[in-house]
Amino acid sequence: MTAPATPSPLALLQRCHLESLQRAYDEVLTRLGLDGVLLFSGHPRRHFADDQEAGFAAYGHFMHWTGQADLARSWLLIRPGQRPRLKVHAPDDFWHLPARLPDEPWVEAFDIEMARADAPPALPAGHFAVLGDVSAALAETTGAARNPATLVAALDESRVRKSDYEIACLRDANHRAMAGHRAARDAFLAGGAELDIQLAYLGGSRQRETALPYASIVGLNAHGGVLHYQHYDSVAPARRRSLLLDAGHRHRGYCADITRSWAGPDADPAFAALIEGVTALQRRLIGELAPGMDYVDLHRRMHRALAELLADQGLVHCTPEAAVAQGITRAFCPHGLGHSLGLQVHDVAGRVNGAGRPLPPPETDPALRLTRELEPGMVVTMEPGFYVIPMLLAPLREGAAGGDIDWSLVERLADHGGIRIEDNLVITPTGHDNLTPPE
Amino acid sequence: MTAPATPSPLALLQRCHLESLQRAYDEVLTRLGLDGVLLFSGHPRRHFADDQEAGFAAYGHFMHWTGQADLARSWLLIRPGQRPRLKVHAPDDFWHLPARLPDEPWVEAFDIEMARADAPPALPAGHFAVLGDVSAALAETTGAARNPATLVAALDESRVRKSDYEIACLRDANHRAMAGHRAARDAFLAGGAELDIQLAYLGGSRQRETALPYASIVGLNAHGGVLHYQHYDSVAPARRRSLLLDAGHRHRGYCADITRSWAGPDADPAFAALIEGVTALQRRLIGELAPGMDYVDLHRRMHRALAELLADQGLVHCTPEAAVAQGITRAFCPHGLGHSLGLQVHDVAGRVNGAGRPLPPPETDPALRLTRELEPGMVVTMEPGFYVIPMLLAPLREGAAGGDIDWSLVERLADHGGIRIEDNLVITPTGHDNLTPPE
Repeated sequence: MTAPATPSPLALLQRCHLESLQRAYDEVLTRLGLDGVLLFSGHPRRHFADDQEAGFAAYGHFMHWTGQADLARSWLLIRPGQRPRLKVHAPDDFWHLPARLPDEPWVEAFDIEMARADAPPALPAGHFAVLGDVSAALAETTGAARNPATLVAALDESRVRKSDYEIACLRDANHRAMAGHRAARDAFLAGGAELDIQLAYLGGSRQRETALPYASIVGLNAHGGVLHYQHYDSVAPARRRSLLLDAGHRHRGYCADITRSWAGPDADPAFAALIEGVTALQRRLIGELAPGMDYVDLHRRMHRALAELLADQGLVHCTPEAAVAQGITRAFCPHGLGHSLGLQVHDVAGRVNGAGRPLPPPETDPALRLTRELEPGMVVTMEPGFYVIPMLLAPLREGAAGGDIDWSLVERLADHGGIRIEDNLVITPTGHDNLTPPE
Repeated sequence: MTAPATPSPLALLQRCHLESLQRAYDEVLTRLGLDGVLLFSGHPRRHFADDQEAGFAAYGHFMHWTGQADLARSWLLIRPGQRPRLKVHAPDDFWHLPARLPDEPWVEAFDIEMARADAPPALPAGHFAVLGDVSAALAETTGAARNPATLVAALDESRVRKSDYEIACLRDANHRAMAGHRAARDAFLAGGAELDIQLAYLGGSRQRETALPYASIVGLNAHGGVLHYQHYDSVAPARRRSLLLDAGHRHRGYCADITRSWAGPDADPAFAALIEGVTALQRRLIGELAPGMDYVDLHRRMHRALAELLADQGLVHCTPEAAVAQGITRAFCPHGLGHSLGLQVHDVAGRVNGAGRPLPPPETDPALRLTRELEPGMVVTMEPGFYVIPMLLAPLREGAAGGDIDWSLVERLADHGGIRIEDNLVITPTGHDNLTPPE
């Protein structure tokens, strides 16, 4: 099959994306006095003293051009004003299906070599850098500088604002992930174990676990309160109070990152009300997304809104100001409001400004991954949450704030774990656009 | 819940296993003049320039004592005549569920420390070795020799013959894997895509992809001829000729490795007959398994038997001797007859004899992973196969043997990919025992 004569709308967007990427690289390379940069896709690692390999995801900057998340041991040479050169590792191998590039128009923008060996291409004379998971010894054979920080920072910055092509890919990834969320919710309501819910998610979103942009968080009952809960129990609990599902998808390299929380048949009504409250709170915060907004400020507004919600629900008796000031909302929601999203689930350059200056998170909010001012083209997650985390509540209970909290209600909610509602948003010139479809 | 007062039969076997392991280590350490060995379980690796981790499996020698395949950053100190000391990395962490040891009797045989830090334990004065995925710098801080080859070889050898406990675990892993194979076969017959078959396998065997001892090979149609086919197509082919499913399970650290081949509704009758033939051939070869048998010799008998099968089915017109001599059977089955199986799917020390002397595979059979003489307690796979691999058949067709093959029949079979029938067997004092239950 050959590529169709009339490119699809996505193919046209991708062509613009690659042209714009070439201009951005040209500018950066010229500014840094480089004749080119060699990007290594990386390679899977074997388990120690074993012949089996762990999962793999290609280097972000390699994916920025190719979108190929599983193309290992391949090289991409970018030089100002020249066509990109892609050397794909595709050895004669009857043990595996050899690597192939998709039959799509974008490959015509590259000079492509299908290579039996995985050695880097020989570089012409000049000043080059090599980026990626490359040993010092291998970098030396290329004669290029290895992962110079200034260049990496400049290319990271080039990924902060997404092109229309990238936004289309992120939207599509969201639609696929949501199909998984629907299947997972059904598996939960049908009485499935965490493992069954995860497998239903994979079936609904049509992907394998090792291709996910991040390990799905599938928390039933109290497990929903473990922020990055990492297991999938194979036995369903007797009582089904809640499901927290944080699960994404990678499409053409680009990641979706969606969380939904569901009350089960054995849920306390107070928990269902809190899901509604967090959902409404998230919608209000989404409404504020616009260029010029400081994401740290938005994170602070989340804490203020969460304090109001906790007071409304009778969990907290003090004023919202006092609940935030005493660290009550931070104990119930210790993670950040969101992060940049793109070729990686926690995308690059979330904590520097456009000039590369560090923007550290507030001391009180060390987990906040995005501290920039929002700009058109940025894609961010918005994920307020509420959790019963005994390790964080215990010191609160013993301290001055202890009297401001309804501990019997906390106890009733503890077996429900937590709540998180997360969508993916693109910042537009006038506001925002939600990439996550309704469930 | 506390451990039951009366240990289960498995717990009693495990106690014997640990006592026998202690004796084996004592002997090896004393012989090598070592006061002890420190085993590091290892740790998952992050994708390059990302904060997401790839899958993980603990170091085999760490699992030999603990069976814990996902216990990361933990240390085990073994000294002659002393109780093993296990330092489990279990930091205070509300982001993840902290590591826990199972509530089982075996933990009472260890001195256990639940540690917040992942640093190695301080070693007493003496000569120690440290084994595992440890950097040179970290090994230096322990003062121990890092991965000395003589010690590693001696401990590898201690894993070749399995204890009764290990055989019980391997048998249980097989039963769980077979439940997955049944679910996968049903998904295939119901018209599922490779992805659906893999997810059905995981559901039936109750495990997640990253916990598998190896990536399942799920080959529909021609994909069954790619020996380590590595993808799971998410769309089912229009015609369903065949499924080759090579999929295992890890239970208490121990691996099952089972392959089954199925003819689909659109299969050529000649393919179904070949599945029957390979199955019968495998049964006959299994019947020959006994102590003292040279596995290389068994591999050669497989080629002879395959030649007879191909002649019977009309694929080859020459004598079986000529089919083997001309490399016809090697083109149709280029992999080895089997391998050692245990804590790793391709278990250690398959190509050395008991004295640690190398036993390289025959030049004509470089992929054969097991070249030892069989001994009671060894667990091996038995996996003859037949594949249509264009890359290997093309030179045969152009050479002298080309006239001895029915190429029109080969063409009819090509879209079916291949066949492999694989069971797991333990060598007993008088013969063998099949650990793989009937499907």
